[in-house]
Amino acid sequence: MNNYPKSSRNTVKRSPKRGHYDREIVHQILDAGYICHVGFTIGKQPYVIPNAYGFGRESDTIYLHGAVGNRMLNQLEKGLPVCVTVTHTDGIVLARSAMHHSFNYRSVVLFGTAYLVPEEDKEQALFIITDQILKGRWSEVRPPNAQELKATKVLAMKIEEASAKIRTGPPKDDEADYELPVWAGVLPLQLTAGEAIPDPVMNQSLSVPASVNRIRVQNTI
Amino acid sequence: MNNYPKSSRNTVKRSPKRGHYDREIVHQILDAGYICHVGFTIGKQPYVIPNAYGFGRESDTIYLHGAVGNRMLNQLEKGLPVCVTVTHTDGIVLARSAMHHSFNYRSVVLFGTAYLVPEEDKEQALFIITDQILKGRWSEVRPPNAQELKATKVLAMKIEEASAKIRTGPPKDDEADYELPVWAGVLPLQLTAGEAIPDPVMNQSLSVPASVNRIRVQNTI
Repeated sequence: MNNYPKSSRNTVKRSPKRGHYDREIVHQILDAGYICHVGFTIGKQPYVIPNAYGFGRESDTIYLHGAVGNRMLNQLEKGLPVCVTVTHTDGIVLARSAMHHSFNYRSVVLFGTAYLVPEEDKEQALFIITDQILKGRWSEVRPPNAQELKATKVLAMKIEEASAKIRTGPPKDDEADYELPVWAGVLPLQLTAGEAIPDPVMNQSLSVPASVNRIRVQNTI
Repeated sequence: MNNYPKSSRNTVKRSPKRGHYDREIVHQILDAGYICHVGFTIGKQPYVIPNAYGFGRESDTIYLHGAVGNRMLNQLEKGLPVCVTVTHTDGIVLARSAMHHSFNYRSVVLFGTAYLVPEEDKEQALFIITDQILKGRWSEVRPPNAQELKATKVLAMKIEEASAKIRTGPPKDDEADYELPVWAGVLPLQLTAGEAIPDPVMNQSLSVPASVNRIRVQNTI
């Protein structure tokens, strides 16, 4: 089956036509993401932490990593329910009335439980994460050594339930407002890569690698 | 006092030098955001939902809005603890080793409890939200009418505690790795506005308004 199962937890209630459960759609939005927001609860307190070291996906599994002492990972490792969200802001929707202003966006909300990735699978998981940060980068750099692997915690989360929500297109205004002399439309937004900035202490004869050139071409408007 | 109070809830433990509690820094990062991620817990299940209708800030208060039937707002209104997070992805940090790859980013994590904005303050809150979506837009469009105000729920959350986390600059590599013949540096990322797309059904003689022109100039790399 190519759809994630639906329950009260992941069913999109507001604007249900914008909700999607298809694995391919969910994965596409996830894979276009750099940083995910990880939600977990301690006591009754929710925390939403951006995973600033990147994340990776393989099939229905999400990988997160951090230092062995990382508080968030230590909490997640206990087997708490986790919610992972990735959102792309694609445009400002400018309507004729204040109340119909909105955003075009693509988001995914994933539900699951995290678990520790065993030692023997760590390096593969770190490859998946690095490959999501920048495709092809892994083979350009020094791989992790034994000491680094020991100091790094990698968690996996199997996606139990998921939903995507997508808004595209022009504003939806009230019928009577279409007559108003108000400019309406969409201001597209895109996360765009600029010129690569070499590390000032680097030997400046090294040229920008293939991994970086690839993304710059893709992301230019 | 210009700092938010520190507790175990909002103190940045990992890379504490990247943590900030200054109101001005927190507000700057918040105000640069379009969509926030709202975290709340039902039972033991955390939810992280992108607020795709925008949000606004005034002083230490965050405003969210949605339809009266909106599930998330109905939950928050009960007075649950809430965590609101805004993250800007500013660049991919390309190190000489796989493990030192990271992102440059600015994020804020806010803690508080939401409450219903009374009828008489709704319109001002909606102005604040619209002004954060696009400065100056409010005066270009039809303001909310009585029916719309009635159908809209606006929640406020006073920021009780907050922290910002910021990473900037080149990669930090292991001393021995600086000798490696690996290109290292930063690939800057920026949310960039493209050409405004007029609503196809609009009278095409209307010109792009000041609010839109302002942001396009600001956001161009």
